Amino acid sequence: MTDSNATGPNRRHFLAAAAAGSALAATAARAAPPDPRITEVQDWNVSWGDGVDATPYGLPIHHEAEVIRRNVPWLTADAVSSVNFTPIHALEGTITPQGCAFERHHAGAIDLPKADYRLMIHGLVDRPLVFSYDDLERFPRQNHVYFLECAANSGMEWAGAQLNGCQFTHGMIHNMEYTGVPLRALLAEAGIRPEGKWLLVEGADASAMSRSLPIEKALDDVLVAYKANGEALRKEHGYPVRLVVPGWEGNMWVKWLRRIEVGDAPWEHREETSKYTDTMADGRSRRWTWEMDAKSIITSPSPQARVNHGRGPMVISGLAWSGRGAIRAVHVSLDGGRNWQQARLSGPSHDKALHRFYLDIDWDGSELLLQSRAVDTTGYVQPTKDQLRAIRGVNSVYHMNGIQTWLVKPNGEVENVEIS
Amino acid sequence: MTDSNATGPNRRHFLAAAAAGSALAATAARAAPPDPRITEVQDWNVSWGDGVDATPYGLPIHHEAEVIRRNVPWLTADAVSSVNFTPIHALEGTITPQGCAFERHHAGAIDLPKADYRLMIHGLVDRPLVFSYDDLERFPRQNHVYFLECAANSGMEWAGAQLNGCQFTHGMIHNMEYTGVPLRALLAEAGIRPEGKWLLVEGADASAMSRSLPIEKALDDVLVAYKANGEALRKEHGYPVRLVVPGWEGNMWVKWLRRIEVGDAPWEHREETSKYTDTMADGRSRRWTWEMDAKSIITSPSPQARVNHGRGPMVISGLAWSGRGAIRAVHVSLDGGRNWQQARLSGPSHDKALHRFYLDIDWDGSELLLQSRAVDTTGYVQPTKDQLRAIRGVNSVYHMNGIQTWLVKPNGEVENVEIS
Repeated sequence: MTDSNATGPNRRHFLAAAAAGSALAATAARAAPPDPRITEVQDWNVSWGDGVDATPYGLPIHHEAEVIRRNVPWLTADAVSSVNFTPIHALEGTITPQGCAFERHHAGAIDLPKADYRLMIHGLVDRPLVFSYDDLERFPRQNHVYFLECAANSGMEWAGAQLNGCQFTHGMIHNMEYTGVPLRALLAEAGIRPEGKWLLVEGADASAMSRSLPIEKALDDVLVAYKANGEALRKEHGYPVRLVVPGWEGNMWVKWLRRIEVGDAPWEHREETSKYTDTMADGRSRRWTWEMDAKSIITSPSPQARVNHGRGPMVISGLAWSGRGAIRAVHVSLDGGRNWQQARLSGPSHDKALHRFYLDIDWDGSELLLQSRAVDTTGYVQPTKDQLRAIRGVNSVYHMNGIQTWLVKPNGEVENVEIS
Repeated sequence: MTDSNATGPNRRHFLAAAAAGSALAATAARAAPPDPRITEVQDWNVSWGDGVDATPYGLPIHHEAEVIRRNVPWLTADAVSSVNFTPIHALEGTITPQGCAFERHHAGAIDLPKADYRLMIHGLVDRPLVFSYDDLERFPRQNHVYFLECAANSGMEWAGAQLNGCQFTHGMIHNMEYTGVPLRALLAEAGIRPEGKWLLVEGADASAMSRSLPIEKALDDVLVAYKANGEALRKEHGYPVRLVVPGWEGNMWVKWLRRIEVGDAPWEHREETSKYTDTMADGRSRRWTWEMDAKSIITSPSPQARVNHGRGPMVISGLAWSGRGAIRAVHVSLDGGRNWQQARLSGPSHDKALHRFYLDIDWDGSELLLQSRAVDTTGYVQPTKDQLRAIRGVNSVYHMNGIQTWLVKPNGEVENVEIS
C-alpha cells in the first residue's frame, strides 16, 4: 500500500505554484494593486446584478453550458429508446442534480398528470386495490439516498478501451435522495397470499416496461417514490411515481409505475430474457443478475477533465459504490496497478449510495496510469477487466465493473487506455 | 407525551378511504376493467414519449409550475436588494434543489466568470496571496451538507401571525451538499500572525457585502465552496465561489467571495451594526448573534398545502434544524401545545443540516392546532413566540425561532394563527 511517486502534497511546491499562478494572473488580467490592502475596481463591481425575480426556477449559469447530459446517437435507432449520460466528469460530492441525471427510456418519457395517476395491485392478493397519487401521500414516508446504475453502464468496455470520457464509460448512473412509501406497506394493504412469491412491476409508458421482482426484495427496502432531491420526480425520471429498487440494476426501477401483479413464478418477459441477461463464452446465459457489484471510477483527472496545471499538488477525485452495502475502502494506483494507496472518503456515505473519494498527490509532472479499486462492506474487491473476461468471456453487454485506467500525459491530456 | 386524539394510523379507516378513493376514481376517470388482470389502455399509453435529446439539462415538468421561489414585492424597494422564498410547503426529504433555493441579494446576482475569479488574503499575514479558481481546485476538498438560514427568516412573526404560508414564514432557508476547501487550509498558506484574531470576508458584488468573522470559527468548519448538490454553484448562490459558515446566519455566507483581510478587531461594518443586530425592549441591541437557534416548522399540512382528504390516515411532515449541531428530537402537538407526541425522524441527519420529521396520525376530521418543537443535541428546546418576546421584546427583525401554529379546519383549509 505504498507508492514512491507520491508522498502527499508538498507545501513548498504549492506555494511556488500559487505564486506563479497569481503572478501570471495579474499579468494576464490586470496590473497588481500597489498596496494589497487596496482592492481593485473590477468590471463586475461597477454594475448591479440581477434581482430575485430573474429566475423563479433557476438553471445553471451560462458559463456551465457544457455540463449537460449527452446522447450517443449511433447507440440506438431512435432517441425514444435510447440513453444519455450524466456529466460525472464535471460533478463533485455525491448528489446528482435531477437536471443532469442520465435518462434511459424504452418508449420515451411520458406526460402523466398526478390526477390521472393510478397504481393497481392485483393477482395473488386478498383484495385487489387501486391507489391514486393522493392515496400514496397518506402512507408513512421514508427518505433514503440511493444510486441508480444501468446494467449496461461501462458495457462498451468489455471489448477494451472504447469511449474517451467517464461521462460515456461510467455516466449511466445517478445518486438522489428519494421520498416514498415502502412497497411492503402497500402490499400489506392488499394482503399477499401464501403462494405469492414474485411480483410483476409494470410502467405506464408505451413499452409497458416490466420486470419480475422476487417477494423477498419487495418486502425489504423497495420504495414507491414520488420525490427526488426534495422535489417532484422529473418527467424523464418517472413523474409522478417510480419504483426505487436499492442496489439493483436500473431497468428494475420502473418509471410511471402503473401495475403490480403478484404471482407464484417469474414472468420471464423480454427485458429479463433476451435483454438484461449475460451470455457467457460457452453460449449459456447468466440471468437474475440484479445486484450491481462494487465499482469505482476516477472522475478527475479524466479525458473530459484534463490537468490544467503543472507539477505540484493535484487532487484526484472519484466515485465508488456497491449494490450490496457501503464502501469500506477505495485504493488508487498511479502506475497501472503496481502500487496502491488508500484514498480518502469525504461526505455522506450511505448504503447503496455513491461515495466520493480523493487522493491528494504531489505530481512530479511525469506520465500517470490512474486506476481506482473499490472494496465494499461485504469484503468484495472490484476486479480487473481481464479477471471479469476470464470468468464471463466477452459476449456480455451488462455488469462490467472492471477497474478503469486513465493515461495522464505530462502535458495534462488524459486518455482511456487498457493495460494487461 | 400522549394525545388521546391520535393513536397512529388505523388500517380499517385507511382501507375504507382507499376503497372509496379508487371507486370514485374509476367512476370519474373511466370504467373499471372487467377483470383486474386486464390493464386499461390509457391515453398516455398509446403514444410514445419524448426522447433523451429533449432536455440536455432538465427542468421540472409543467404540472409543477407553481413550485417556485416567490418574492414579496412590498418587502423592499428593489428586487436587486430583496429576497425570495423556498417553496418548502411543496418539498420533501432534506435536500433543497438549487433551482428553487431562496435568494437574498444586497446588490443583485452578478455574472463572474471563473477565469476572472480572484480571492485575495491579506492583512495580518506572513505572505499576502491571490488565489485563482484553478488554485482552489488544487487544495484537498471536503463535502458536507449544511442548512443556510437568513437571520430574518420568520421575522414578520415577531408581531404575530403575519404571512399565510410556510414558504413565506420559514422559506428563507435551504439545505445543500457543499464541496469546497476548508478556509483554514488557505489561511495556513498565507500564515496568520499572532495578533490576527478577526477576518473581514467580502464579496465581489456591487454592495461589497462584508462581515467580520472571528478567527476561531474560520479555523473550525468554514468552507470556501464552489459546488452545491454536486454541480457548480448557481449564479444567484455566488458562482463561482461562496463562503459556507455552518450553523451561522446566512448573510455571513458571503457570495462571490473576493477578499479576506486578517485584522486584530472586528470591523463593525453596516451589516453588523445597523443591520443584523437585535434591538431589545430597553433600546439596547444584541450583536454578534451569529448562531441560528434550534427551530422547526410543519410544512404539510400548512396554508399552502391544505388537507385534500377526509378523516383517516394523515401524514404530518416537517423540517427541524439547529446551528449548534444535530436534532435530538422533535415533538408535535395537535392541540396548540397542551399535549405533545414524539415525531419520527427519517432520512440523513447531519450536524447543522435540515432534518425531516413525520407524525403519522389517524385524523378524526376535527379542528387541529398543529405545532412542532425541536430539541437539539445541546439540549436546547425551541421556545414559544411569547417566551422569546418576554426576553427580547418585539423590536427585533432577526432570530425569531418561536413555535409556529397552524389551524387545520374540518374542511381541510389551513391558516397561520397565534395562540396565547
